[in-house]
Amino acid sequence: MARKPLDYDQLNENVKKVQYAVRGELYLRASELQKEGKRIIFTNVGNPHALGQKPLTFPRQVVALCQAPFLLDDPNVGLIFPADAIARAKHYLAMAPGGLGAYSDSRGIPGIRKEVAEFIQRRDGYPSDPELIYLTDGASKGVMQMLNAIIRNERDGILVPVPQYPLYSAAISLFGGSLVPYYLEEEANWGLDIVSTCQSVASARAKGMTVRAMVIINPGNPTGQCLSEANIREILRFCYEENLVLLADEVYQENIYQDERPFISARKVLFDMGPPLSREVQLVSFHTVSKGYWGECGQRGGYFEMTNLPPKTVDEIYKVASIALSPNVPGQIFMGLMVNPPKPGDISYPKYASERSNILPFTYFKAILGSLRRRARIMTDGFNSCRNVVCNFTEGAMYSFPQIRLPPRAIEAAKRAGKEPDVFYCLKLLEATGISTVPGSGFGQKEGVFHLRTTILPAEEDFPAIMSSFKKFNDSFMEQYEGYSRM
Amino acid sequence: MARKPLDYDQLNENVKKVQYAVRGELYLRASELQKEGKRIIFTNVGNPHALGQKPLTFPRQVVALCQAPFLLDDPNVGLIFPADAIARAKHYLAMAPGGLGAYSDSRGIPGIRKEVAEFIQRRDGYPSDPELIYLTDGASKGVMQMLNAIIRNERDGILVPVPQYPLYSAAISLFGGSLVPYYLEEEANWGLDIVSTCQSVASARAKGMTVRAMVIINPGNPTGQCLSEANIREILRFCYEENLVLLADEVYQENIYQDERPFISARKVLFDMGPPLSREVQLVSFHTVSKGYWGECGQRGGYFEMTNLPPKTVDEIYKVASIALSPNVPGQIFMGLMVNPPKPGDISYPKYASERSNILPFTYFKAILGSLRRRARIMTDGFNSCRNVVCNFTEGAMYSFPQIRLPPRAIEAAKRAGKEPDVFYCLKLLEATGISTVPGSGFGQKEGVFHLRTTILPAEEDFPAIMSSFKKFNDSFMEQYEGYSRM
Repeated sequence: MARKPLDYDQLNENVKKVQYAVRGELYLRASELQKEGKRIIFTNVGNPHALGQKPLTFPRQVVALCQAPFLLDDPNVGLIFPADAIARAKHYLAMAPGGLGAYSDSRGIPGIRKEVAEFIQRRDGYPSDPELIYLTDGASKGVMQMLNAIIRNERDGILVPVPQYPLYSAAISLFGGSLVPYYLEEEANWGLDIVSTCQSVASARAKGMTVRAMVIINPGNPTGQCLSEANIREILRFCYEENLVLLADEVYQENIYQDERPFISARKVLFDMGPPLSREVQLVSFHTVSKGYWGECGQRGGYFEMTNLPPKTVDEIYKVASIALSPNVPGQIFMGLMVNPPKPGDISYPKYASERSNILPFTYFKAILGSLRRRARIMTDGFNSCRNVVCNFTEGAMYSFPQIRLPPRAIEAAKRAGKEPDVFYCLKLLEATGISTVPGSGFGQKEGVFHLRTTILPAEEDFPAIMSSFKKFNDSFMEQYEGYSRM
Repeated sequence: MARKPLDYDQLNENVKKVQYAVRGELYLRASELQKEGKRIIFTNVGNPHALGQKPLTFPRQVVALCQAPFLLDDPNVGLIFPADAIARAKHYLAMAPGGLGAYSDSRGIPGIRKEVAEFIQRRDGYPSDPELIYLTDGASKGVMQMLNAIIRNERDGILVPVPQYPLYSAAISLFGGSLVPYYLEEEANWGLDIVSTCQSVASARAKGMTVRAMVIINPGNPTGQCLSEANIREILRFCYEENLVLLADEVYQENIYQDERPFISARKVLFDMGPPLSREVQLVSFHTVSKGYWGECGQRGGYFEMTNLPPKTVDEIYKVASIALSPNVPGQIFMGLMVNPPKPGDISYPKYASERSNILPFTYFKAILGSLRRRARIMTDGFNSCRNVVCNFTEGAMYSFPQIRLPPRAIEAAKRAGKEPDVFYCLKLLEATGISTVPGSGFGQKEGVFHLRTTILPAEEDFPAIMSSFKKFNDSFMEQYEGYSRM
């Protein structure tokens, strides 16, 4: 019988090649178990609201008013909305002819792109041009747009850190390019070794590839490290010498859990270095409303900023963005609010500041300044106290990425079950404890080395139980496969 | 000097090949003129709210409450929100753990997919499976996902009506496939002639292509025709015989301006035909919150439904959707509300019904039932009264697509200016009148035949002035290039 065009074996091979572990086998099994009534602790995706984080009040008030602009004429509106939220809603509605129901320009609303440029200038100390900032439905969509423009065929290589966030490997497969790995050094706190990165490029070139871009994720996902300024300088010099576009994924720039290495943007370091680099290196930087202390994942708001891209290329990116007409408008307004939050003196500032800081018990900024720092520490220490587990401290982002030293017999058992060893371990962990993690193989790891990724987002009061449940499972797993009794 | 990876000549060729006229040269020039202070009548995009249409109140109330769930505990909430909007907000929040700030499942919120399935069942009289319905950021994103799965290389052909909506040509270029045109017959009210479509397929095959899918846009964009049931049956039989996936773009299904040919979905016709077709033909149908009497373009809500696709393919589509995590959640709730609007007996029903119908002066449902019908008629008659202009009646969708018979001298003048003849005409029209249209070449047309597309969305009271301004320009244009004085 003739195969039909949408039968599996007839699909675009690049679609079939895509792997996306964050919502892969572990997630599907966890969803099944949840349906069966088991309590699942979802630590597989950095999705803070799904784990109980409450939204900040002020931005939600503003967007609610923008959705329901007829409320602005309601005599009772002042009873449930503060005056500055009303003023801010009017501010954004004035920028958006037709309101939230109209397509915006495909690059995003000009007034909001201007607010983003002002935020970047305040952050970096260098002016930013709104015409080079495009708003997107979350950062991932922006990354995909750029990779699609860069990748021409399977000989085009993109340098990606390993371990990496699987958006990169998945998008590179989808667009038919090649991932060129550079390995982060677990023994050096997941630092980037520029010498071995050079070797990766040389070896890819020896195979006939054209390496065209380099991805950095700072702070790291899944690895949680923060890049030092010196390291970013090395990277930029490397991109300059090797003629690579730098794609700087900086979505976790507000999620920092130590004081030694604050976040510094690749763009600031580039401009600090001065010419010729500051005028030559092509850089695209990504940000989002989904992370930080906002965690507004479901709203799908993001932006990218292009540095040193020629105008004709900027126009091409605009043209492709136009095909799907415009990013969602409410997500654009969240981006405006994120880069321009209430200021001291505003009516809503005390509430906003208190939500961000320590007064309300379960808000997130407290979490960042206090609770998430503590959780990062408790989790790292907890993993390090377990048999055959070692783990670097989570300096930033939202993840812990412990190495699990699997005994040979566990590896054999996994092979018999037809699973990757780390998938085998994570499935057992899920079945025994309800903790839903992502196996390290979903992010890439050196051969024969195994990890898992967990977010540090569960509520702090649940941590002792989670860590003790993990330890108990791990002890019994190691007991079973190391077979101490017979040694 | 070495070319850099994001220099124009180094970009992915498929990106460069993309053409997207709806926001092309005419739109850019119109934006410039607007900046210079000229009054522009944007009829280039079907963007009703941008042209003054007010949003329906009830869905906006519900989504505003979902954005600001803390209002549900406010003792004053009942003063500005009706009880059924409050109840509906609770209904959707209960479906979305973590609320609007959490990523949903990448296919969309299960409860809303169920509501969509119930809507389809009510519409078509056949059950629909929520597992085969995926929510998307507008219909365009869904179309792109499916074309990406279908197109493997440049020898894969997609049958697209000409004239067509340029999403299709743009996405096919971007994914590296080939557009196989089938011509709609202007003389037969833009009907599809299955014999000439057969010839298109045969001629593509003779060139070594594999034709894999067929796109229909019903009601038509830019052509405004409604397909008859008999025509859809012919199309389905053709897809069955030629082994083509049918992609049914049905986003204008509520925009119907005559009674002879009501909208009927491709899916209903397929199931009416019974086996073997009903079990064999692979069909994907698209819908949106951006059109109909909602016009909520900026919210980016849509869905597609897959019929007769094997489960492994459905899983692959899911995997690729996962890369960007989830469609925006507010847009999903708009979709839930669209398929499940207030019912008679609900508190909000009278207001909703009155907004939809004829009581409030400027709402859209009135427009559909009355004003838009009148506008479709006034526009068609107006065009047909102009020298060298002929135009089919707009039976559905939002567009009028008159043919402009350009005199040879106008074509020569365009050539000298380095423009397509229809672009030349539309630019002159824009400069003279501020009316921003899209040249027919952006949609495709037969060689030597020229059109423009305009929406029928400007306010009814502006129509006499717009049509008279058009007529005046056209008369003077024809006068200039026909040179009657010298004949």
